[in-house]
Amino acid sequence: MAVSFTVTKKERSGRARLGLLHTPHGTVETPVFMPVGTQATVKTMTPEEVREVGGRIILSNTYHLYLRPGQELIREAGGLHRFMNWDGPILTDSGGFQVFSLGPLRKVTEEGVTFRSHIDGSEHFFSPEKAMEVQETLGSDIAMVFDECAPYPCSREYALEALERTSRWAARCRAVHRREDQGVFGIVQGGTFADLRKKSAYELVELDFSGYAIGGLSVGEPKELMYEMLDYTVPLLPEDKPRYLMGVGSPDCLVEGVARGIDMFDCVLPTRLARNGTVLTRHGKLVVRNAEYTKDFAPFDRDCSCYACRNYSRAYVRHLIKTNEVLGIRLTTIHNLHFVLELMKELREAISEDKITEYRDSFLKGYQGA
Amino acid sequence: MAVSFTVTKKERSGRARLGLLHTPHGTVETPVFMPVGTQATVKTMTPEEVREVGGRIILSNTYHLYLRPGQELIREAGGLHRFMNWDGPILTDSGGFQVFSLGPLRKVTEEGVTFRSHIDGSEHFFSPEKAMEVQETLGSDIAMVFDECAPYPCSREYALEALERTSRWAARCRAVHRREDQGVFGIVQGGTFADLRKKSAYELVELDFSGYAIGGLSVGEPKELMYEMLDYTVPLLPEDKPRYLMGVGSPDCLVEGVARGIDMFDCVLPTRLARNGTVLTRHGKLVVRNAEYTKDFAPFDRDCSCYACRNYSRAYVRHLIKTNEVLGIRLTTIHNLHFVLELMKELREAISEDKITEYRDSFLKGYQGA
Repeated sequence: MAVSFTVTKKERSGRARLGLLHTPHGTVETPVFMPVGTQATVKTMTPEEVREVGGRIILSNTYHLYLRPGQELIREAGGLHRFMNWDGPILTDSGGFQVFSLGPLRKVTEEGVTFRSHIDGSEHFFSPEKAMEVQETLGSDIAMVFDECAPYPCSREYALEALERTSRWAARCRAVHRREDQGVFGIVQGGTFADLRKKSAYELVELDFSGYAIGGLSVGEPKELMYEMLDYTVPLLPEDKPRYLMGVGSPDCLVEGVARGIDMFDCVLPTRLARNGTVLTRHGKLVVRNAEYTKDFAPFDRDCSCYACRNYSRAYVRHLIKTNEVLGIRLTTIHNLHFVLELMKELREAISEDKITEYRDSFLKGYQGA
Repeated sequence: MAVSFTVTKKERSGRARLGLLHTPHGTVETPVFMPVGTQATVKTMTPEEVREVGGRIILSNTYHLYLRPGQELIREAGGLHRFMNWDGPILTDSGGFQVFSLGPLRKVTEEGVTFRSHIDGSEHFFSPEKAMEVQETLGSDIAMVFDECAPYPCSREYALEALERTSRWAARCRAVHRREDQGVFGIVQGGTFADLRKKSAYELVELDFSGYAIGGLSVGEPKELMYEMLDYTVPLLPEDKPRYLMGVGSPDCLVEGVARGIDMFDCVLPTRLARNGTVLTRHGKLVVRNAEYTKDFAPFDRDCSCYACRNYSRAYVRHLIKTNEVLGIRLTTIHNLHFVLELMKELREAISEDKITEYRDSFLKGYQGA
């Protein structure tokens, strides 16, 4: 199998675990956070910088790359890794989440989804088969099945319909997937209905994927409800396969997710916040573009060892951001990814020392503005 | 003297020479090109990257820093070097060129210039004394006198008036300047009138500055006329002081300027072109954002050793630029500065081998679209 997983340690008190995710482009320690490189670039960064802040596997978006620059160009470039000069593992989403997010611009049938490009309005069709074809062309290490992500809130009927379609589409993805050097993950849906999560997990596990994602969470529901769904869903997934919580990346949710047995995460939050002039710290968010930091010559975080904190003041970065200088958002991005990836490292250490509960309690006590 | 200059070699066939510019933040080999860091950052780059592409001294703009973040903040930060984390030499312009460029937003008297900020319309007053005060606060290694740069074309009368005012203002700058760890350069004006250039040079040399700039060129006049003015003006300047041609940075002009005895240059051209998706090569400009490079997997320049050319294709950079990804303009900026700074290195080598004429002829023969 192209992608395999080894659990190397189970934490004493609960479900948290350490693992090794083996891919054609290397092995990654889990729990892991995947920086997002939507358009074949982690925004503002070089691959070397992503690696320096601790990035080991990145996520890229099938929908965006399909539209620009197009799969044919990436095929001619020798695949996505070579095109973007990233030699580590890449996970691609399937485009499902994006096309369903287009709202009135898309039409769903059993066959697939017809949608209009958010860029030029041109019409396109995505199906399970098409999503697999594009991801095989991109050559990511891990492809995701084409799923239907129900919004929150939604009716039980709709959540059921979406999960059933997701299961049928997952089977179609499985049937057409050919690339032996690429793993495929299923996506558990079912909204916030425990019994539907169970049905979805059961149907997907039957199909035997390389890993299992939990989709349709962090879409607007209260965090407590998300945690409840994790408590319910994680035990339904195979112990020996990686568990990936999609679209989650706020520090408190990462801690809670790891404690509940999640192995993989991705989220635009750290990089998006950075571009808005907000940095993450152990005490919560710091909006460095605010006037209060005009003459603050301290680094973002005195305890941080990232390139930005070692060399620049809040006052300088605020100046750069206020004057639209690119270096400003480069520095906040470096810091935020470093912060999240250091947090993951500490979580792995806490698991190895059987102290995940203590770590969680201590972290959440200091973290404001979750 | 805070800033001194040593001529280490005169080229056999003409005026070109090698030198060492000694400043409080280190010694720089000349002829040198200074990357522009208008707002206390060389756009898109870290100081380490500027150094990696060969940058040894940078220029920053007094007018912009005076408006944002303000001299008081930079004073509190410990000066411009510390604020922006650049420990090499910095030359600051005086703001003269910028305030005179504001057109209807400014009013000139013998005392100085009243102008409105291009950012918020607020009213400000700059004089020779003020320009010196701000530059002393910034703490640059080299301050420039507050001058009046006549436009092209302009009447002999106006060119005369502007140069005479520039001389009087230069004397006022000299009189108030106090900082012992900062050199001051005079600026020769006189438009495109040879006798006025002579008058200006004479008056400024009398004031005994650390170096002499040639201003008011590359403002729209034909290149041949600029070269003619250089041929006329350079011999009027002291042999033992650095000669700085302001605002010049296109590759052919750098070559022609060095051959005519210029030691220092600055220009936004390489970085500005980069942000427009255009790269410089030995054969001329290459507009990498053009459709013809969509599937071109070659680097910008096969013979270039910069980070961008070693790792990325034209097709990839074009994709980044078309999708507004910051990494795109980072890569074009790295390449363009590397190109210009390599060119300066080759020019220094050509001087040391007494082959500046051969180098110039060979370079200009291959370079299109000057």
